[in-house]
Amino acid sequence: MESQPPGRPSPAYYDIVIVGAGPAGLMLSTCLARWGYKIKHIDNRSEPTPTGRADGIQPRSLDLLRNMGLKSAIMAHKPARVFEVAFWDPPKEGKGIVRTGTWASCPSFIDARYPFTTLLHQGLIERVFIADLEKQGVEVQRPWSIKGFKSDDKVNPYYPVQVDLEHVDGGARETVRAKYLFSGEGARSFVRDKLGIGITHKDPISHVWGVMDGVVETDFPDIKVEHGSIMVIPRENNMVRLYIQIASSTDPDWNPRKTATEQEVQASAKKILKPYSIEWERVEWYSVYPIGQGIAGKYTLDHRPKAGQGMNTAFLDAQNLAWKIHAVEAGFADRALLMTYEPERRAVAENLLDFDNRYAKLFSQRPPAANEVQAASNNTNGSATEENEFIKTFKESCEFTSGYGVAYGPNSLNWSPLHPAHSPLVLTYPEDTRLRPGHLMINADVTRVVDANVVHLEQQIPLNGSFRIYVFAGRPSSTTQKALLDLASHACKGRSFLTSYLRPDLGDVSHHENLNPHSLFFTLCTVFAAPHARIEIARDVPALLARYRGLVFADDRFDHRVPDATAAAHAKMGLDPERGGVVVVRPDGYVGIVVRLVEGSGTVDALNQYFGSFCKKKLGGVSRALL
Amino acid sequence: MESQPPGRPSPAYYDIVIVGAGPAGLMLSTCLARWGYKIKHIDNRSEPTPTGRADGIQPRSLDLLRNMGLKSAIMAHKPARVFEVAFWDPPKEGKGIVRTGTWASCPSFIDARYPFTTLLHQGLIERVFIADLEKQGVEVQRPWSIKGFKSDDKVNPYYPVQVDLEHVDGGARETVRAKYLFSGEGARSFVRDKLGIGITHKDPISHVWGVMDGVVETDFPDIKVEHGSIMVIPRENNMVRLYIQIASSTDPDWNPRKTATEQEVQASAKKILKPYSIEWERVEWYSVYPIGQGIAGKYTLDHRPKAGQGMNTAFLDAQNLAWKIHAVEAGFADRALLMTYEPERRAVAENLLDFDNRYAKLFSQRPPAANEVQAASNNTNGSATEENEFIKTFKESCEFTSGYGVAYGPNSLNWSPLHPAHSPLVLTYPEDTRLRPGHLMINADVTRVVDANVVHLEQQIPLNGSFRIYVFAGRPSSTTQKALLDLASHACKGRSFLTSYLRPDLGDVSHHENLNPHSLFFTLCTVFAAPHARIEIARDVPALLARYRGLVFADDRFDHRVPDATAAAHAKMGLDPERGGVVVVRPDGYVGIVVRLVEGSGTVDALNQYFGSFCKKKLGGVSRALL
Repeated sequence: MESQPPGRPSPAYYDIVIVGAGPAGLMLSTCLARWGYKIKHIDNRSEPTPTGRADGIQPRSLDLLRNMGLKSAIMAHKPARVFEVAFWDPPKEGKGIVRTGTWASCPSFIDARYPFTTLLHQGLIERVFIADLEKQGVEVQRPWSIKGFKSDDKVNPYYPVQVDLEHVDGGARETVRAKYLFSGEGARSFVRDKLGIGITHKDPISHVWGVMDGVVETDFPDIKVEHGSIMVIPRENNMVRLYIQIASSTDPDWNPRKTATEQEVQASAKKILKPYSIEWERVEWYSVYPIGQGIAGKYTLDHRPKAGQGMNTAFLDAQNLAWKIHAVEAGFADRALLMTYEPERRAVAENLLDFDNRYAKLFSQRPPAANEVQAASNNTNGSATEENEFIKTFKESCEFTSGYGVAYGPNSLNWSPLHPAHSPLVLTYPEDTRLRPGHLMINADVTRVVDANVVHLEQQIPLNGSFRIYVFAGRPSSTTQKALLDLASHACKGRSFLTSYLRPDLGDVSHHENLNPHSLFFTLCTVFAAPHARIEIARDVPALLARYRGLVFADDRFDHRVPDATAAAHAKMGLDPERGGVVVVRPDGYVGIVVRLVEGSGTVDALNQYFGSFCKKKLGGVSRALL
Repeated sequence: MESQPPGRPSPAYYDIVIVGAGPAGLMLSTCLARWGYKIKHIDNRSEPTPTGRADGIQPRSLDLLRNMGLKSAIMAHKPARVFEVAFWDPPKEGKGIVRTGTWASCPSFIDARYPFTTLLHQGLIERVFIADLEKQGVEVQRPWSIKGFKSDDKVNPYYPVQVDLEHVDGGARETVRAKYLFSGEGARSFVRDKLGIGITHKDPISHVWGVMDGVVETDFPDIKVEHGSIMVIPRENNMVRLYIQIASSTDPDWNPRKTATEQEVQASAKKILKPYSIEWERVEWYSVYPIGQGIAGKYTLDHRPKAGQGMNTAFLDAQNLAWKIHAVEAGFADRALLMTYEPERRAVAENLLDFDNRYAKLFSQRPPAANEVQAASNNTNGSATEENEFIKTFKESCEFTSGYGVAYGPNSLNWSPLHPAHSPLVLTYPEDTRLRPGHLMINADVTRVVDANVVHLEQQIPLNGSFRIYVFAGRPSSTTQKALLDLASHACKGRSFLTSYLRPDLGDVSHHENLNPHSLFFTLCTVFAAPHARIEIARDVPALLARYRGLVFADDRFDHRVPDATAAAHAKMGLDPERGGVVVVRPDGYVGIVVRLVEGSGTVDALNQYFGSFCKKKLGGVSRALL
């Protein structure tokens, strides 16, 4: 231990110090607090985000919030739901503006549970996280800021980072030690500055926009639908947010530092909306700001990126990091797992910037025809042959803006032919299955056998830090049943992925524990291709899987996307209902690997190979059953 | 005014005194408080219902709670959802019990939004109402009881009822005057006793049951599904409620006053469930009680019935009364409207008792075959020809237990050929429409035009005390459009149902007011049989209806119940999309009358006739437009 300065208390020890209580910091804090980590969380503002700064929650982010049990608290604020974006342009002849088309926020080719963007005051969203943190005993310490930090394994190998914190009025100071330091400070980051990581602006500032929240009276028909040039966004409590272009680099008097008064912003809006009228009853908040694209020069474990995507990106960054920290700190995964964070999230940010450029380029060449938008929106089967470049790009844009398009490339977590798991039993996309490693699992309805409740399969395992193993078990009492028994018996043998990571308190686990009865790193779930009344858990489900009583499902619900399927969930995943398959989903909902369900040890061998590529213990080998 | 006893304050004046804060009292109080009435609400318990007494919220009651904006607060408690009831019986050969069938709580032939029974602690449900009342400034005064009441129009014609109230410890007393006195005291009612109204027991006590809430460990497979002989009901927090038959009038030692200890109740349960085992980890609450059927001798406006149906019936009783009191007190309806309360609710209670008898009789003759249950559950088209008596009775039972079967007979509110509205334009069931006066409007999805949100049509007008006028307007720019314009212009003329009841503050109504911009007694809504992108409010909707901007809908959503329909909502209601129709729905969601949409004054004339049969003013006649 290093010597202490006189008169200061000895440093407190934390698993992590989190700087900044915006969406990224709060998401990370919430996940880790729930999983039992000790957190020091500071923010340099005295209060959470007060007003303005409404943000759009993407369809996929709503799934994620629901998976954390936070969706209903957010929806209780009755946020606006944007189903469509309307485009208004000057007409070919004459003056004024006319509606030239409407685009769905999340067209039907995306299989989303919530096909709309949810708009809510960011401060209200933050408070939902803050309330959840309070339940875990974590309080954000305000207004405090970070004054310095250094990392030295030799001083304390368990808590290598020393962090100096100070009350913003300069009075109180605190020095703490931690395993991790996370900066969620946004664009102006002390931590990033200290580490010498810049933000690369791919493009210089190109526009100045005004944003204004308020209650308006207008005869403009689409005031509740989002717009193009001027963006009109409905909000809660009769409010409307307008984003109004104030200046552009193509203007003759272009000045990237241009500002505007409230009246000037309103005048710009009135000009754009002509011949329609608009008057403000009340302005809640307004601001003027320059825009450009930015990306952090380096994604490291010591900071979080500012990729210009706001809250949705922040959520995914933090969630990606959270479960990986947990996997390492709880003793499951090798520390190298943390190295997958930067490439995964950085590639997403880069893809997005690249896409933005392609998108803008394509649209500047020629505007899309209405029938192309229609064709792109309605096409659900993805038959690529008839798609022109516009339709492809439009679809890609929908996938990005809905959040469903976020996907991670091959690495130890996301199987590819280069992965060390070389089992011939791996099912590959698109030949054997519609599930793709690194992509989200596909949403599907099923019936829970114990209580006949109709449920959303992808939501049945909460964000609990565990890998999700979905055993698609074919039909009960059919030929797959021998394979199912073999899967269970081999998973119970010594040195399997499961028995290698049993709970230390295995004998004392309550029989009500349904998610992690055996291991904190795995939750197992079984889906039969049969009507739920035909399934008898005691008869059809091996004891290992029956222990997850509430996670035995019947694939017996009609799905209009696969109207002819007898087992719609199997069909949507592209799995044969006669043969089944085992789907490994990462704790964050992305597919890791899909394996054939076969008799003998092959299926568990393949899972052992997969998990063995990033976990700490050597898996596999012959031994007796332990469970 | 009568003289005051010395030393007592002069009586306070209330619109209504409500005695008892169970489901009926709370529902009535909540409705009337929201509509601005002054309420004295007392209850003789010091606290709301503490524990036990969980109750099942029927599927239709959940619609009702949602229509009041209270559903999400109830669902936030994560109540159990019962989708199925399982029947276990002794096998034909051998010992023990086997599952002989499962019945859906709300089979698919019922077009329910929430096809399950919601189980939650009654105390938690009551607290949702109490919290809502607090927002309106109404507090339940506890523990106070009613000591006497008398009614005399001559003393005070505006507040005819004098009510004496007393703190249960006998200390404080209060005398108040009111327009109405409501007793929601349940089976032991001071008010009913005073009025000499007995409860008729159609049958004497026939069984003694035990009920026990607790956490159990069992190998019985259906512990999360409701059962027949023994009733096993899942509850929140891993709890299970068991209803266990303790004694029956067919027992040799039958005693209707039999009691049982906790251990005796558990022993009965263990015996019934053999060969399965059951052990209690914790008993939260248990009780033993006799059962029989009861109905109040008289339904009057001075009390509420105790029909043995519990919370769901109480909700409907109170809601039925609430909007009628409002219609009368706010000056819309003739006082005679109140006389429809007793016959409507009494007939529902009697139908239920009669049905129970028929049901029991049918089942005692022979148990239903599994294929009959299956046939009854799956039949969605209601082709009556192939249904035997069992299937019909089973369906009827599902309609009762889901709440969708509650219907009111002909009177001034529910049109029939005997109704004073003799217009030839009335659409009748089943010839012209699938909507039936006195029955609930049929649920349907539509798209809201202003913001492209997909919504549930039947939920778009909240329980606001207004009649709901749904104008099914056919296709925009088609031949129905002249009829639509005529409807709007005749509704705007003097002495129409609408102009006769305009808001006194008509000129000062905020342009954000979307439900009652013209009248507190009517909310108007328009549904086009067209894709939402084709509808231009400024062009297609007459100004009167366009004023309800958020209530203009497109009937453009697919519905699997009418897969071939181009306009599914029209099809479900049995309305021709080329011709439309006007549907009047009572404030409580029951259909009043359905009228053809025609050119000229006929449609409005028919509406004037309908409303004229129970409202205070004379409607109809030629005059100039007032709106």
